[in-house]
Amino acid sequence: MKVVVVLAVATILAASQCHGSEYDRFPLEMVSDGYHPGYPPEVWCPSWRVAVEAHNYINWKTVPSECANYVASYIEGDQYDSDSKLVNQQAYFYAKSLKRTMNDVWIFNIDGTALSNVPYYAKHGYGVKPYNATAYDAWVRKGDAPALRQTLKNYHNLLGLDFKIVFLTGRTIDKKAVTEANLKEAGFHTWEKLILKDPVVYNGQSSVAYKTAERKKLEKEGYRIVGNIGDQWSDITGKFPGFRTFKLPNPMYFIA
Amino acid sequence: MKVVVVLAVATILAASQCHGSEYDRFPLEMVSDGYHPGYPPEVWCPSWRVAVEAHNYINWKTVPSECANYVASYIEGDQYDSDSKLVNQQAYFYAKSLKRTMNDVWIFNIDGTALSNVPYYAKHGYGVKPYNATAYDAWVRKGDAPALRQTLKNYHNLLGLDFKIVFLTGRTIDKKAVTEANLKEAGFHTWEKLILKDPVVYNGQSSVAYKTAERKKLEKEGYRIVGNIGDQWSDITGKFPGFRTFKLPNPMYFIA
Repeated sequence: MKVVVVLAVATILAASQCHGSEYDRFPLEMVSDGYHPGYPPEVWCPSWRVAVEAHNYINWKTVPSECANYVASYIEGDQYDSDSKLVNQQAYFYAKSLKRTMNDVWIFNIDGTALSNVPYYAKHGYGVKPYNATAYDAWVRKGDAPALRQTLKNYHNLLGLDFKIVFLTGRTIDKKAVTEANLKEAGFHTWEKLILKDPVVYNGQSSVAYKTAERKKLEKEGYRIVGNIGDQWSDITGKFPGFRTFKLPNPMYFIA
Repeated sequence: MKVVVVLAVATILAASQCHGSEYDRFPLEMVSDGYHPGYPPEVWCPSWRVAVEAHNYINWKTVPSECANYVASYIEGDQYDSDSKLVNQQAYFYAKSLKRTMNDVWIFNIDGTALSNVPYYAKHGYGVKPYNATAYDAWVRKGDAPALRQTLKNYHNLLGLDFKIVFLTGRTIDKKAVTEANLKEAGFHTWEKLILKDPVVYNGQSSVAYKTAERKKLEKEGYRIVGNIGDQWSDITGKFPGFRTFKLPNPMYFIA
């Protein structure tokens, strides 16, 4: 790594001297995957992660290979749980501050939000390897995803405040039975609606488009979306996102 | 700190046993400032910071006192610069990917974005102390704020791509001359517009409302806002935010 940094610095210096420019252009620092640190991995991998969380770094395909160990340690250590806890806490404090009406709903995404897919990703490089739809699908169909514990706690707290829960997932409708069973098994025992994706209706559409369309339906049916929590920005952007939205951490993959 | 954690844990355990509930409510873990870790500061201060950056933790008045050292170290160490670099790089890569038209503008916020106010905050607890408008104002009027170097680099790169730059700041119009001089002194030598806040027109309005109204004016004048970069979510939310927005790190204060 140090060699790469030294080479990059040397290239930048040489280039800026050649062009007589005080301001070196970023592309000189790029490495193969479009990322280009200038800082060692222990500094720029955290920068990468926070840029993902703050929606600055988008449309990425895989975790940068230099951050493989960093992401694995993050997910398996306390930080992921702590980060998830704080976000869920803020969601609950917000919910508590609201004057609830009968038709108030909270939307929960499922994978990476209510149910953890860490057991799958732990066996597939924590996002360093390209997404494998067949393998992931097979894993989902096993139906034994555990709850993300901080989300489960929040779910129970929101139910305790009498909010209705809507699960809105990118899982397709053929996975309805396994999803229902998995949710219950993991402790999410009740919901107002479980919305799965009809692949015919939403053929080729982005997650944002699909989720926006389904939220619009909810609003038309008379529900008021007060909160919305997901691990992807595509869960909480687009129209009718909810009064407040909450972004759970996920440095393993990006869904547009 | 350990005593607080132990007491909190004990309280939670006692409470959940009393109520026979499997799911302890978060408020039991709250501490005086509304924050309530469950993890030691070295874990939950990073959680707090990422929650701030991802717009999960909002409307806060001061940095949690337990995170004073953490925030100071973050700002003065490499991480703040690295985080700022990555965000500016992503902004530049996005700009490079665009087919520019004549009236394309990039909006830059000023304080905490183009110009650094770290020299001020370093003398005022890095955000742990409540905001002091008089002291801050006096500091701004000195006009010697340095550039945030990663933003300056990006600014020059965007100029190199022939984008027009608009500075849109919450500074009031009485600070026009000192702001112009400070920007130039810091290396921001040219701009299409420098928009300062008229305190009569925007009396009592939020930063989001003010900035949205000024962006609307820009669009009416025929500009196309392609990018928008700021250190506050209020810089980049509301209507007409720009095609893409970029959130620079700032764990020292929150402006609504």
